[in-house]
Amino acid sequence: MNKMHGTWISELKNLLQEDQVTVNPTVLEQHSKDESYHIPHLPDVVVFPKDAEEVREIMRFAYKYEIPVTPFGLGSSLEGHVIPYQGGISLDFQLMNQILEVRPDDFLVRVQPGVTRTQLNKELKKYGLFFSVDPGADATLGGMAATNASGTTSVRYGIMRDQVRDLEVVLSDGRMIHTGSMTAKSSSGLYITGLFTGSEGTLGVFTELTLKVHGIPEVTTAARAVFPSTEAAVRTAVDILSAGIQVARIELVDDRSIKQVNLYNQTDYLVKPTLFIEFHGNEAGVKHDVSFAESIAAENLCEEFLFEADSKAIAKLWEVRHNLAYAFAHKSPGKKMMVTDVCVPISELVGAIKDARLAIEKTGLDGALLGHVGDGNYHAIIMINLSDSEEVKKAKELNAHLVDYALSRGGSCTGEHGVGIGKAVYQRKEHGDALDIMLDIKKILDPKGILNPGKIFKG
Amino acid sequence: MNKMHGTWISELKNLLQEDQVTVNPTVLEQHSKDESYHIPHLPDVVVFPKDAEEVREIMRFAYKYEIPVTPFGLGSSLEGHVIPYQGGISLDFQLMNQILEVRPDDFLVRVQPGVTRTQLNKELKKYGLFFSVDPGADATLGGMAATNASGTTSVRYGIMRDQVRDLEVVLSDGRMIHTGSMTAKSSSGLYITGLFTGSEGTLGVFTELTLKVHGIPEVTTAARAVFPSTEAAVRTAVDILSAGIQVARIELVDDRSIKQVNLYNQTDYLVKPTLFIEFHGNEAGVKHDVSFAESIAAENLCEEFLFEADSKAIAKLWEVRHNLAYAFAHKSPGKKMMVTDVCVPISELVGAIKDARLAIEKTGLDGALLGHVGDGNYHAIIMINLSDSEEVKKAKELNAHLVDYALSRGGSCTGEHGVGIGKAVYQRKEHGDALDIMLDIKKILDPKGILNPGKIFKG
Repeated sequence: MNKMHGTWISELKNLLQEDQVTVNPTVLEQHSKDESYHIPHLPDVVVFPKDAEEVREIMRFAYKYEIPVTPFGLGSSLEGHVIPYQGGISLDFQLMNQILEVRPDDFLVRVQPGVTRTQLNKELKKYGLFFSVDPGADATLGGMAATNASGTTSVRYGIMRDQVRDLEVVLSDGRMIHTGSMTAKSSSGLYITGLFTGSEGTLGVFTELTLKVHGIPEVTTAARAVFPSTEAAVRTAVDILSAGIQVARIELVDDRSIKQVNLYNQTDYLVKPTLFIEFHGNEAGVKHDVSFAESIAAENLCEEFLFEADSKAIAKLWEVRHNLAYAFAHKSPGKKMMVTDVCVPISELVGAIKDARLAIEKTGLDGALLGHVGDGNYHAIIMINLSDSEEVKKAKELNAHLVDYALSRGGSCTGEHGVGIGKAVYQRKEHGDALDIMLDIKKILDPKGILNPGKIFKG
Repeated sequence: MNKMHGTWISELKNLLQEDQVTVNPTVLEQHSKDESYHIPHLPDVVVFPKDAEEVREIMRFAYKYEIPVTPFGLGSSLEGHVIPYQGGISLDFQLMNQILEVRPDDFLVRVQPGVTRTQLNKELKKYGLFFSVDPGADATLGGMAATNASGTTSVRYGIMRDQVRDLEVVLSDGRMIHTGSMTAKSSSGLYITGLFTGSEGTLGVFTELTLKVHGIPEVTTAARAVFPSTEAAVRTAVDILSAGIQVARIELVDDRSIKQVNLYNQTDYLVKPTLFIEFHGNEAGVKHDVSFAESIAAENLCEEFLFEADSKAIAKLWEVRHNLAYAFAHKSPGKKMMVTDVCVPISELVGAIKDARLAIEKTGLDGALLGHVGDGNYHAIIMINLSDSEEVKKAKELNAHLVDYALSRGGSCTGEHGVGIGKAVYQRKEHGDALDIMLDIKKILDPKGILNPGKIFKG
C-alpha cells in the first residue's frame, strides 16, 4: 500500500463527486477512533458512497491499488473496529441511510447500512412493529450487523445474527452478492449470511440488509429488584430463566453502578445490587409472569421489587441503564473506558461475577460490574488513565484474567462487542485449530488483505 | 479414487475391529438409499466408528487414498443426502449414540451424532426439558444438524441451526475442531458453527454436538381448525402471526391430505383444508392466545375449531400429521414419494399455495399440499412410478415450476429438507455469484473432494 501515496487520492476523487472524498483534518480525526480506549489512527481519506454501485467502484479501485478499506458507521464500536490502523480509506455510510422497504406481513425491513436503529424504530412504530436489538448506543444497522451486536433484549428476541435474513455484500474485488433470501428459513447452499454477520468488515462491505422485526407487544412492564448481594441478584436471574419465564430484558446493575446512576441521573435508587427486568406479552400472561418472577426474587431475599408504572418511567429506566457508560466517563474526565465483555454458560455466572469482583478489587482500579445476565454476558467497566502505564497494564491484566476464567468454563472472550483489535490476542486460545479455518476463509474472501486489516485476525 | 480398489478395504479393516468394517451386501444395500425417489447407489464399504479418534483415523485414511466418505445417520433424508454416488465409505454413526451431558441450568445437552431425537427427548423429560426441533422422522441429531432440519415447531423455537451452540468436527484431512462454545451468544471469530450446520457432510464430519434445549411449557393446548378453502386456512395462519400470537406449531393439511389421514389412521376428520395448531405457555397466557386465535379463524370463515382435550389426543394429532408421508406411501405401493420443499415470505404464501394447487392439477399427478405455513414453507407430496418416464418428467417439471415461483418472490428452493442431490440444480439460480463463495469454502475445507461428493454442489 501507499506505493503511490498522494496520487491515488486524486485518482479516487475522479471516481466520485468532490464532496464525497475528503482529506479534511477534522473529518480524518473523526474517523480515527471509536468509543474505546484503543489508540486512534488517521485514515488517508474518508469516502462517502451514495449507493452500492459506488461502493463497488471504490472496492475495485482499492483492490487494484491494494489500499486498505475500513467501513465506518457511527464510530460507536468498543474494540477499535473502525480505527484504520493501516490508513487507507475510511468508508463512511452516512449517505446510505434509506429505509428501502417495510414488509409488515413478513415482519421484514430492507435498509441501507447507514440507517440507525432509532431511525428504524421511529418508522416501524407506524406499523406496530419494532426492531429488537438494543445495544444502548444509537449505532447504524450496518455496524451492528458487522459486529453481531446484541444488548438488553437478546435474552428474548435474539442477537443481531438472528435478525439478519439477507445481506447485500460487496466483496474485496468489487463483486456483489446476496447472502440469503427473504424467507423465515432455508436449507439451501451454505449459510454465509451468518458468516458475514459479525465479520467486522474483514470479509466484505454491506450495502443493504434485510432484517427481521417484531410486533410491539400488547403489554410491557418493567421492574427494579434490589438484592443484598450481587450473587443473590444473579441467582434470581438464573432461577427466572430456569422457570421458563420469558423475560424481555434482565440486567444486572451492581451497587457501584447504581451509585453512579444516582449521581448522573438525579435518581435515588437504593445503592445495592439491582436487577432491571422487563416483561412483554399479553395482559394475562404478563401478570402471571410478573407474580412468578416476584416470588422467585423473594426466595432470593429480594429487598425491594418496584414496578415502573408507565411507558415514560420504563423508558427512563432503560435510559439510565444505557447511559451508565457515559455516567462513568462523565465523572472521570481525561480517563478512557475499558469495557470487558466475556460470556459464560449461565450455570457459571454466579462464580464468574464473584471472581470478577475480587479481581477488580485486587487491581485497586475504579470498576463496576453490569451486564446481560440472562445471556451469561457481563461487563466490567474500568476507567483508566492512558498515560499511566501501570494503570493500563493492570487493566489489561484484569481483562486477560476475566477472559481466561471464561474460556476455562466453556465461555467466550466477547459476548457482543466483537473482536476488533482488543480481542484479537485471544482468538487462538478461544478457537484453537478452528482459527485456521477462519483464516482460510478470510484469505479467499480478501486475498490482498485490504478489508479492515488487523481486525479479528492479528495483522 | 478406487485406483487401489480391493486392497484399500482390507487395509481399512486393519485400522478398526472386524465388525466395524463391512461389505455385507444387505448392509451395503441399506446404505445405498434414503427415503426419497433418488436412485440408490451402493457404497464400497460401511464403517461404524466408535469415537471421534476413530473418525479421525478413518478420515486420514480416506484423505490419503482419496476415498469418498458419506456420513450416514438413519437414512431419513429426503434429497439423497446419504446416497454414496461415488461409492467409497458410508460412515454410519449408530455406535456413537451416547448422550454425553445434560446441563439443565444452561439449557444445553452434549450428544454424539448418532443419538436420535426421541432418544434425547426421553432423557430430557426427566429434567423437565425437551429438544424442540421435530422434523417428523426420528432422525439422528447429527443428520438433523447436517441438513439444518426444522419442522412443525420451528415457528416458535427456531430451526436446527438456532439450537446448535458447538460442533466437534473432523475435517477431511483428519484435523479436529470445535466451532463454537457453550455460551448463549458470542461475537468472537467468524461464525462457522452456522456454516457447518446445514453443510450436509460436504465440509466435515460431526463427532459431537452441543445443543440448546427448552423447558417443557406449563400448558400445551392443540386445536384443529377447519376451513372452506386452502386460502382461508393460510390467511388465518398469516393473520395469527401478524397478531403476535406465539403459536408453537401451525400446520396446513389440505383436504386431499385429510382424506389420506382418515384412511390411514381410522380418524373421521372433516375432509376440508385444516390447520393443526398448538399453543405453549402459562395457563393465563395460553387461554388468552387461544381465544384470540379462535376469533381470527372465525373472521376467516372457520367451520370448526376443535380442541384436543389431553396430552394423548395432542400426541395423536401430531402423529397423524407426521405419518402423512407414510400414509401416502402406504396407499401407493410400488410408487416413490417426491416431496417439494419451497419456502416463501409469508406475504406470498396464499398466492404460492394457490399456484401450486393449480400446477399439480395441470400435471394430473396424485398430489397433496401441506406444510409449515407459519414459516412460509410448504410441501407438495407427489407419488410417482419411477419406471414411468413420463410421470417422472412431469413431477420434475412441477418441482422446477414451484422452485421458480418461490425464487421469483424472494423465496428459497428448500426450507428444511436441504439440497442433497435433488436441489443442486437450483443452487446457481438461488444464490447467484454467492455460489462461487460457497464453492471456494468447499474447496478449502475439502481440497480433494472426498466429503459427500456431488451433494449441494453439482459433481
